[in-house]
Amino acid sequence: MNGVQQKTAEGILFTDQYQLSMAQLYFRLGLHEKTVQFDHFFRDYPDYGYHRAGYCINAGLAWLLDWLQTARFQATDINYLRSQTDRTGVPIFDDSFLTWLQNEFTFERLTLRAIPEGRVVHPHVPLSVVQGPLAIAQILETSLLNHLNYQTLIATKAARIRESGEGQLLLEFGLRRAHSTGANAGARAALIGGADFSSNVGVSHVLGLPPKGTHAHSMVQVFMALGMGELDAFRAYADVYPDDCLLLVDTIDTLESGLPHAITVFEELRRKGHQPVGIRLDSGDLAYLSIQAAKMLNQAGFTDTSIVLSNDLDELIIWQILTQINQEATRFGVDPAQLRRRLVYGVGTRLITSHGSPSLGGVYKLVAVCDNGTWIPAIKISENPGKTPNPGHKHVWRLYDGRGNATADLLSLDDEDPSQMEVIVLQHVSDHTKRRELNQAEVKEIEPLLVDVWDEGKLVYNLPSLEAIRERRQQDLNRLDTGVKRIMNPHIYHVSLTPRLWDLKQHLIESTRNQSG
Amino acid sequence: MNGVQQKTAEGILFTDQYQLSMAQLYFRLGLHEKTVQFDHFFRDYPDYGYHRAGYCINAGLAWLLDWLQTARFQATDINYLRSQTDRTGVPIFDDSFLTWLQNEFTFERLTLRAIPEGRVVHPHVPLSVVQGPLAIAQILETSLLNHLNYQTLIATKAARIRESGEGQLLLEFGLRRAHSTGANAGARAALIGGADFSSNVGVSHVLGLPPKGTHAHSMVQVFMALGMGELDAFRAYADVYPDDCLLLVDTIDTLESGLPHAITVFEELRRKGHQPVGIRLDSGDLAYLSIQAAKMLNQAGFTDTSIVLSNDLDELIIWQILTQINQEATRFGVDPAQLRRRLVYGVGTRLITSHGSPSLGGVYKLVAVCDNGTWIPAIKISENPGKTPNPGHKHVWRLYDGRGNATADLLSLDDEDPSQMEVIVLQHVSDHTKRRELNQAEVKEIEPLLVDVWDEGKLVYNLPSLEAIRERRQQDLNRLDTGVKRIMNPHIYHVSLTPRLWDLKQHLIESTRNQSG
Repeated sequence: MNGVQQKTAEGILFTDQYQLSMAQLYFRLGLHEKTVQFDHFFRDYPDYGYHRAGYCINAGLAWLLDWLQTARFQATDINYLRSQTDRTGVPIFDDSFLTWLQNEFTFERLTLRAIPEGRVVHPHVPLSVVQGPLAIAQILETSLLNHLNYQTLIATKAARIRESGEGQLLLEFGLRRAHSTGANAGARAALIGGADFSSNVGVSHVLGLPPKGTHAHSMVQVFMALGMGELDAFRAYADVYPDDCLLLVDTIDTLESGLPHAITVFEELRRKGHQPVGIRLDSGDLAYLSIQAAKMLNQAGFTDTSIVLSNDLDELIIWQILTQINQEATRFGVDPAQLRRRLVYGVGTRLITSHGSPSLGGVYKLVAVCDNGTWIPAIKISENPGKTPNPGHKHVWRLYDGRGNATADLLSLDDEDPSQMEVIVLQHVSDHTKRRELNQAEVKEIEPLLVDVWDEGKLVYNLPSLEAIRERRQQDLNRLDTGVKRIMNPHIYHVSLTPRLWDLKQHLIESTRNQSG
Repeated sequence: MNGVQQKTAEGILFTDQYQLSMAQLYFRLGLHEKTVQFDHFFRDYPDYGYHRAGYCINAGLAWLLDWLQTARFQATDINYLRSQTDRTGVPIFDDSFLTWLQNEFTFERLTLRAIPEGRVVHPHVPLSVVQGPLAIAQILETSLLNHLNYQTLIATKAARIRESGEGQLLLEFGLRRAHSTGANAGARAALIGGADFSSNVGVSHVLGLPPKGTHAHSMVQVFMALGMGELDAFRAYADVYPDDCLLLVDTIDTLESGLPHAITVFEELRRKGHQPVGIRLDSGDLAYLSIQAAKMLNQAGFTDTSIVLSNDLDELIIWQILTQINQEATRFGVDPAQLRRRLVYGVGTRLITSHGSPSLGGVYKLVAVCDNGTWIPAIKISENPGKTPNPGHKHVWRLYDGRGNATADLLSLDDEDPSQMEVIVLQHVSDHTKRRELNQAEVKEIEPLLVDVWDEGKLVYNLPSLEAIRERRQQDLNRLDTGVKRIMNPHIYHVSLTPRLWDLKQHLIESTRNQSG
């Protein structure tokens, strides 16, 4: 794809054909300007097969806004749509609709509320709420889901890996295995969710972070092919990067060659007044090798150098490595706690692709239509009750318990405010037998989650810095019960409806069923 | 990311930091212009957990070439690199290296051979071979892998899904769940590997294919919220798209509401002289519902209308649906063969993310260094023998058996030609006990797989059209044994070394081990 083609494929036509077909249908019927509301939410946490998430980290909003602010129908897009024909050769889109697209269509006519990036989020809770003309809100669907689903997926995986790695330094290395240019969004999401740095140079630059890296096996191979050896390669590296010297020690043999050579070079650096950064292990039994590496480095007096682990790591593999270190390090004369504090994780493929669950099922559902000034809630019933969206205008509240921990997210009707309720009834979203009551006194804080982002073409939201987004993430995680954060079989966080919203939902399900009969 | 930032993040800095660190090291040592060879290959077929591929479909080359031809170090990139500092505040990159990057660095100095897109490919076989100055070939690694790994992964999944769907029409619908803008590369790869069309408007336009789609549940919901019903929605759709009328019938109740309403509208269309396209089922028991839909449509005289299935389909789910149709259709008075021929598959999430195996482990390994005009083979040994790359300059041959089917891919040294061998010895790449012999008479055809693509800055390859790439894929699949193509437990296709290449590999492993001792 050349540059011009890329502009086409990533501009306003970065959408599904049926969005345009439906928009024209609405236009023909005079419904295209009717004000509607779509909610964006996901229904289930990522399920990685043998483990699943108990929370997600919201991400992607800022890049969606960048897209929103530039995507519009250019003359070339309109000409292309004009050329589309149906099976009988008749143009699919007529001139009056195309003229409307070119002259009247702008995302600036939409209003957007959203939960900020970095926040802990849960199923069924609207993460973004779009109001505006039907045809415009409809065409936004695909791109909105594309931008928000993937970044939230990856921020969530990064948070889990960070949790598993006990908060040690986490480096994102996945560019070569990412899904094409989606790598950049993935690196950003990883940095929001838990990675400290990325190896990806371009996106690090854009985000204002230094990119991180060491060297590849090929560097040692070049030296060997030229009749030199690993030690020469390490010396050359230390010579060029005396204060950034991190050596990959597994090209030939980690314990017999790589580590002794690295220690030799580190000793040389030390004599010259430099402090070596550490070593990287990229193959073999990482738990065993990291213990042996720590032992050898300790014996040489390098007790602070990092030990970077890489090679298809994810949250379970890191957990396994740490468990084995706890069990075995002492036997080799290494303090497991001290070793764990010097570990750094380089995570590539399994973070940037969210291994085990490479997609988040975020959806964008019509929940209300404004007819002659009156909002009418809309519903789409499903055979699976958990899939039926929550209708109408809603507020989203987070309730904190006496310890200040988040205890439930509550969806209410627009005119409800749980802080005015003596007893807050939390009704499960689909199971009528499940409800819980909280006295106002048990609730320490009630926080609305949605903020105004975009109001008829104006950004009314101060986009936070990456650093602020990461702080937000850490604050939310600090206020989440440990049971919800654990990697295996997490506690189910409560997402609930107020009784009035529950009743509205049941009423709409009933009347829809009757309408079909 | 705004437009300027995107240019930065997808240009020459779309790479890992360590590529730049290593390039500078080579520059300092005067090795940066040394001619080297890197081979790109993957080691294992995608493993989807309970099933795995027996072949891959090669894809991504044309878009890599687009990137290659425009990526260069701009002044802004150089300024950014100049601003990078190490832990002590010292600049990481010095002026002389940066001057070289800006003035001398160009991918035009590389030579590239590759296996064409659309071809069936196997592990260990070099899919692309890069020769050129060490620092330049090194910096290419990340982007090359990013472009080729993902498209090959998705083309492979698409081929499997097409195989499972018995070659019926296959539509790619995954944009909303794809990994950000990687969606476009994914759609292209799906179209190479087996999808007939995509819902993605922009990339379809760029590739010269019509995008396909129908309508969403929300269209029916809008009508219902405004006091109308599903039938009104269907009528409106038929009115606007009388010759493209494909109706989604599961918004309320597939059998009680959606199908009867669709048939009513189809009858109205028929009376007006139009031929309805079909219906789409997007939830529930797709096998059962498609049988019932076929029955109802047949009874109304619509025996040719398509039945489009969607909802998290993949190769196993399609296989299950077809199995159930074969078992049950007759009982409902529906001919299973006739029903299967009217099915169309809309595949989204699980195709564009390669569900079960969301990454392909393609690697880029140094295999030779040219020193004073002599090529020296290079190796990187691994504890796992299957991971040790095959060294040196090589040819790649495909051998076809008496029936004209591909029977093995053979890697040979540069000066070997299997057509000159009376007996062709096929040695397994890592297991010394596994070898097979073929008499020349048993071999119907011997085909070299690598073609010259890029020769010192000149494209010396006619990039085939998408249609030609797809024909190439189909030809290769037609010449592949059924056992290799099957979805579960495929036969292992033979990828072999000539005895001379095997001996070189063993010799290098031995001498590397000695060097470390």
